[in-house]
Order: sequence, then structure tokens, then C-alpha cells
Amino acid sequence: MNLFLGIDIGGSSFKYGIGDSKRGLQHFAIKRFTEKSLEAFQLVMREILDESQQWDIQGIGIGSPGTISQPGGKILGTNPNLPFFSDISPAELVPQGVTLPIYVENDANLMTLAESTLRPGKLCIGLTVGSGIGCGIVYHDQIFHGAHGYAAELGHSIVYPAGDACNCGQQGCVEAYSSVDGIRRRLQRKNSPYAGMALPNLIALRNRIPELDIILREGEDALIRALANLCVVMDPDYLILGGGAMDLYIYDVNRMQIQIQHLLPEAHANSIKCEIASYGNRAGVMGGIILCERNHYRNETCIQKDN
Amino acid sequence: MNLFLGIDIGGSSFKYGIGDSKRGLQHFAIKRFTEKSLEAFQLVMREILDESQQWDIQGIGIGSPGTISQPGGKILGTNPNLPFFSDISPAELVPQGVTLPIYVENDANLMTLAESTLRPGKLCIGLTVGSGIGCGIVYHDQIFHGAHGYAAELGHSIVYPAGDACNCGQQGCVEAYSSVDGIRRRLQRKNSPYAGMALPNLIALRNRIPELDIILREGEDALIRALANLCVVMDPDYLILGGGAMDLYIYDVNRMQIQIQHLLPEAHANSIKCEIASYGNRAGVMGGIILCERNHYRNETCIQKDN
Repeated sequence: MNLFLGIDIGGSSFKYGIGDSKRGLQHFAIKRFTEKSLEAFQLVMREILDESQQWDIQGIGIGSPGTISQPGGKILGTNPNLPFFSDISPAELVPQGVTLPIYVENDANLMTLAESTLRPGKLCIGLTVGSGIGCGIVYHDQIFHGAHGYAAELGHSIVYPAGDACNCGQQGCVEAYSSVDGIRRRLQRKNSPYAGMALPNLIALRNRIPELDIILREGEDALIRALANLCVVMDPDYLILGGGAMDLYIYDVNRMQIQIQHLLPEAHANSIKCEIASYGNRAGVMGGIILCERNHYRNETCIQKDN
Repeated sequence: MNLFLGIDIGGSSFKYGIGDSKRGLQHFAIKRFTEKSLEAFQLVMREILDESQQWDIQGIGIGSPGTISQPGGKILGTNPNLPFFSDISPAELVPQGVTLPIYVENDANLMTLAESTLRPGKLCIGLTVGSGIGCGIVYHDQIFHGAHGYAAELGHSIVYPAGDACNCGQQGCVEAYSSVDGIRRRLQRKNSPYAGMALPNLIALRNRIPELDIILREGEDALIRALANLCVVMDPDYLILGGGAMDLYIYDVNRMQIQIQHLLPEAHANSIKCEIASYGNRAGVMGGIILCERNHYRNETCIQKDN
């Protein structure tokens, strides 16, 4: 029974799972790491591979933040949460001696890929709301990378010219307003006592603390504006919201759909559906499995053709 | 010698030409119309078809403003310049008895298609600056229509929240700042004596009249912002600017490229090239010819396959 290992690298943990597209996830778990270094990463990876030996694993699909060169899967983009995690080839992610094929993709692309398999043939745009804002586009069942692998960087589209500073050096990016880090930075700038509070508490308190409610609502509104502009040029079937902060319902997907429709030309407005990621926080892992599975069977077909 | 007729329907004229992708344009001309009605349109079309009888025309490719349903080529979108020009099928555009195949596409899509054939395999985004702002996307040598045919409506992406009113009912759309109609409306709102001036004079006077220079510069800046946000999600190879107002150099394509690069993440910035449409004001006509030619040979191939 051919199975695949999907790993989703986050800012503070690895999520991983084993399965395939037909049977879904046979196993899912999370490993937190405290030390942020490539060596620590490789140790966690070794633990995961040791655990996985009881299954017939055919390959590894890894989701990472940042820009990933394709083909090849080299991690290029820098990530403020994982500063050491750049200019790394797939082989460096696993312990020496591992001979399984490894495929690396941007984590938001994998989340969108997984969700797109539940909406076959549809034009899907996926968003991950967490410490940053991730975005993926799947068109004709393929991840859209753009001409140079930089596509779908919605987090750095500018919604408020001369707005709040973003980590990227620009002003007014959606990430500066809508990501969890952006929200914290905006609270800090207002000397808010809530800037360092754990996200679940922060969200739970919004109904009682207007200051929190305003900042969270402004984050939602910035995302609405960026998504409406994206819809105007891409005309997708689905906007799919996932990521850690969406698991906590940081933004109201029903309100988002209505507000996005208000910002679109009338004829176009009703064609967009805004939904929560069906795979929840497992979407990235599932995407890694699907990426790996597709490559596995494509390569097999190619070999048969060559014969 | 198989040739194709391309027609580009503008707000005040038909541009048309005869040719194919190998030999280019064998003939090009413009017919202005004064009466704006479907009947007047059909009369001009009759004149063009009569003229074209000396060539071996295999089909007609028509570029129109507005949203065009695909497949089928029905004109759906309304155009403030041609209010009667909506809900029209291709057959209604030509006089009765014409049996040539007719293909209708959005005019900016056709301009981009033509330009993309000069940049084969590249991800091209085309912009037409005229009374409105048109946009087309060509990816893998195919026009990108989005999921419902509404894609590439860059003119209605919002660059300034709560900004100037647009014809579409929204505020702060790029079209409200960067199109010729938008520029006129902004001058009118300032009670400027230049609001009604012919565009070539208006552009020529900008060096002497700061009021004009500011409005034109703000138009360029809005387009720069919209294009930078588009690059962040689409990651194109080329941004190609055409349309009547670009023929008059309303915007400075070199400054645009530099400013767009300033608004992009550093790694991404140098990958974008901003160019003037090589076919100039003939790009739409050439796009119509290419669309028609592609369909002609595709259909022939299909028939051969069926036999």
C-alpha cells in the first residue's frame, strides 16, 4: 500500500501526516521545536522518519514558508520567524542516507492544492492567516507559480498607500494589518497592554475591549480589500481561508464574502465563494501528500512511456 | 492565400486590418462613426466586408470593450461610451448573409494576445490606456479568462480606499485616476478650464501648467500602484502598455518600471519588464487576426482528426 509523508513546517512546529489522496490521512501529529536551527530541524525530521518506518512511504512532500524555486524545490525566501531557513536545498532538510524522493513547495500553495482537490477543476485561491499571510493559487488543478516563482504574494500587496510599515520594507501591505504579527505590532505602537497576549485570549477579549475589536476589524478589512482586488484580476471560483489564526476564527468568513462582493463590479459579485479550509490545520500536510503522490505516479507513467 | 480580418471596436471608430501571423498586416485602416447605434455599426461592418472581398478572408476576429462570454463571444459588459453595445451575439455584429466564422474577444485581451506572440511563452499582462483602462493576461500563450470570464479587470481594482468616485460605483479605482475619462472628471471637479481640451494638447501643456502635470502624474502613480499589486500576485514577465493615450505618451513607461520595482519585494523587483506595445494602435487588430487564425487551424485539425 503506497503512502506518502506530508510535512508542514511552521514558525514553532512541524505538522506531519501519512496518507494518500484516496484514503486521506492515516496518521497525523505535531512536533514542537524550541531551538530554531537547521540542526534541530534535521533532528525532528529524523524522529518523524523513524516513526514513519511502519508505513510503506514512497516519498516526502514538504511545505515551507518563503519562496521556493521550481523545479528543484530550493528554499529561497527569508522568513522573519525562521531566519536561518533560507538558501536550503531539499536534501539538506533530511538526515543523510535518506533516499526517498523529496518535494518542497510553499506552504500556502500546498494548503491551496489540498483544498482544490475537494473542488476539482475550480480556480481556487487559498489564504493562510498566521504569523504572516500566505497565499496560493491553483488553476486547472495546478499550482500557479507565475513567471519566476514569486506569484501569490498577496501579503505584500499594498492596500493602504502610506499606511503602516510592513516587515518587507513597504508601507500599507495587507500583512502589516491582517497577520497576527502585524496585529501585535499595531497594538505595540498604541502601547496596548494586549500586544503580547496569546492569540486565543486576544480574540476572546475583543467583545469586551473596543481597542482590540477595532484592530482585528481593521485586519479583516485590509484582507477584504486585498482579496477584492485579487478577484477583480483573477476571477476565482473560491477564496479559501486557513491557517492557525483562522482555526481560531480571527476573521468572519461570511462577513468577508459580503464585503468582498460589495467591492466588486455588480455582474461579477455573486460568482465568488469565500470558505473556511475544509482540511483545517491539516491542509498543508495533506497538500504535501498530494504533491508527492502526483509526482510519484507521474514519474512512474514517464518511465513506462520511455520503455 | 488564407487571410483573416481583424476589427477593433473603439469608442469612436473601427480599426481594421487584414493579414495573418506570419505575414503581418497586409492592409490597415480606420473608419470613424458619428452615430452610435447597432444599425450604424452594422453599416460600417458592411463597408469593411465589401472592401475585404479582394482578399481570401477565412474569418473575422473582433475586439470589443466590455465583458465577453466565452465560448460563444457574446458581448455582455456595458460600456459608458457605447451604451447600446451590450447583450449582443457575434452574428448580430455582421450583416445578414455573412457566413464567415466570427470570433469576439475583449479588446485588451486581443491586444495582449498580439503582443504575447512577440514574446512567446512569456507571462504577459497588457494594459490599454484610453477612455477606460483595459487589461489582458496571456499565460502559456492563452488568454486567461478567470473562472467566469471576468478576469483582468484591473481598471476596477481599488488603489485609494475612499478615493475619487469611479463610473462603476466604487471609490478609488485605478480607472478613476488613470483613464482619460477619469483624468477629465478629476479636472472638472477642480473646475479646471482644461477638462474638455483634446488629449494631445492637454499632454503637450503639462510642462507649463502644474495643475495638469499633477493630475497626469497622479494617474501614472495610481496605475503604478495597481500594477505593482498585480505583479505581487501574478509575477508576470512583461507589462505591456498600449491604447490611444499611450500612443501619445501620456505615461512614462521607464519611470513606471522603476516605481513598480520600488513597490515590489526586493528579490522579485528586477524580474518585471515594462514596455510599450510593439504593435502600437494596431495591436487590437493584430490580436483579432491571430485569434481568428488560431481558431481556423484548430478547427481544421479537429475535422481532420474526426475523419
